[in-house]
Amino acid sequence: MVSAVRDLTLRHGKRLRPALVAVGLRAVDARAGVRPAVEVGAALELLHTYLLIHDDWMDDDAVRRGGPTVHVLLTRHFRNEHLGHASAILAGDYALSLATETLAKLRVPDERLRRLFVCFSEMHGHAVLGQELDISGTSPGPEAAYVLKTASYSVRGPLRLGALLGGARPATLRALDRFATPVGVAFQLRDDLLSAFGNPRDTGKPLGGDLRSGKRTPLVLQASRRARGRDRATLARVLGNSRATDAEVRRALDVIRRTGAKEVVEARIDTLVDRGLSALGPAISREGRELLTGAALALTARER
Amino acid sequence: MVSAVRDLTLRHGKRLRPALVAVGLRAVDARAGVRPAVEVGAALELLHTYLLIHDDWMDDDAVRRGGPTVHVLLTRHFRNEHLGHASAILAGDYALSLATETLAKLRVPDERLRRLFVCFSEMHGHAVLGQELDISGTSPGPEAAYVLKTASYSVRGPLRLGALLGGARPATLRALDRFATPVGVAFQLRDDLLSAFGNPRDTGKPLGGDLRSGKRTPLVLQASRRARGRDRATLARVLGNSRATDAEVRRALDVIRRTGAKEVVEARIDTLVDRGLSALGPAISREGRELLTGAALALTARER
Repeated sequence: MVSAVRDLTLRHGKRLRPALVAVGLRAVDARAGVRPAVEVGAALELLHTYLLIHDDWMDDDAVRRGGPTVHVLLTRHFRNEHLGHASAILAGDYALSLATETLAKLRVPDERLRRLFVCFSEMHGHAVLGQELDISGTSPGPEAAYVLKTASYSVRGPLRLGALLGGARPATLRALDRFATPVGVAFQLRDDLLSAFGNPRDTGKPLGGDLRSGKRTPLVLQASRRARGRDRATLARVLGNSRATDAEVRRALDVIRRTGAKEVVEARIDTLVDRGLSALGPAISREGRELLTGAALALTARER
Repeated sequence: MVSAVRDLTLRHGKRLRPALVAVGLRAVDARAGVRPAVEVGAALELLHTYLLIHDDWMDDDAVRRGGPTVHVLLTRHFRNEHLGHASAILAGDYALSLATETLAKLRVPDERLRRLFVCFSEMHGHAVLGQELDISGTSPGPEAAYVLKTASYSVRGPLRLGALLGGARPATLRALDRFATPVGVAFQLRDDLLSAFGNPRDTGKPLGGDLRSGKRTPLVLQASRRARGRDRATLARVLGNSRATDAEVRRALDVIRRTGAKEVVEARIDTLVDRGLSALGPAISREGRELLTGAALALTARER
């Protein structure tokens, strides 16, 4: 179980959240040493391991970062599905305990540690609530779960942790928040586009995973609303159908392209990124603004 | 999902861990106000909610604290087993995020908070590793999982958190550890006896739950080793048989009584409690020793 935690954590990941901690720190203090950001980044990667393990089990996904998911790995190891799945939940729980321990042992002044833990627990809570909205289909709107699960957990939280490491003032923290939330939602919309149209070799995710699992992403909702006649049937055949063939998935992706849903989502990404960038007011230095602009583009214009 | 967390947390529980935080604090500082111990205790009750929810799902238990377990409750709510179980895992995760937040907002000096978080993450990790040993049957000995899952998590950790709140010196912390580990194992052995022979109305647990789920407790291991002939068959019929009738369970419990396994476990509890009490040396005040002696008896001589 512990090996499975190590393997998934060290498997090739994007390490976006640690990078954002460093960006948050440097946006506040351009000459800060990056060492504490690396340590907080390690805690966030362990937190992320935990969430990935639990999410993959909930979504019944078999592949993560180009390798088997932890519940698949442990089911194989124990030759027992119940024990494999229970051990996977524990593997996630264990990764989280290591994340907390890593943060508790961080070499920063004690009064900063408290604020880091408040932010860390909020990120954790938001990610969990967002996932519950996601799986239960009770989200009040298609982007509400994204605000919690991605914007807060993946972008706002890491930037804020970095800014807290740098001793940011309240006005700076507020400006970062106004930047991070729209950029974070845009990041998730990019992820949806990549899950659908990206190269599985680059993304490490199986072709059409979101379609087969029936995720109602804004991309899919737009396409479903716009498709007519045979196209509508082609799409419906694949949505939530875990046994759809690759050929059927490719035809459904063609339908999504033809409806123009891709362009709608691309336009929404642009709007959100613009909104985020315009929030970067005078509370943040010129170097800070440059760094954050680069981060916004890296998050929303990537190919994997 | 959030209601389920609240309901289980507020349902009648023993609140042993918060009580032990208060004991740890008062053992170090006889005149300390109990308020910070109450707040740490609230964090521990939320941590406990999390562990109970995940454990109950793993063990497929239907009843907890005299009411439905969270995965049973949420399966009924969503009328969907997969969603009910996934939401239960998230309910546990959410309770843990609240535990971390509660601790992060604790009104104690910042430098104490760091040490509290190191202890808290260790308790969490030990509980998870103990549970994995438990379910996978890979424990190196019958009491090894108890040292992690019960002694560290339920007794040593809470006492240590209380002592840290009181600003305990290293020698005091070491004495508390030497006291807490054997008493914690004895606490779990008492729990095993109560699960088997206690009144379900007092314990809130169903008759013969451990037997039906096939838990290899030291009590069961002793009885299996000692039973002969028909008794052996009577016992084997119930162990790990979730469909065993109440009458079959009662006959198996009679067998356990006849083998003398109950007395062996009672004697082991006495030995462990004696070992714990003899560790309470001069590093702890007379009032502190009295409090801890009372706690050891409350933990190991209880009836529910």
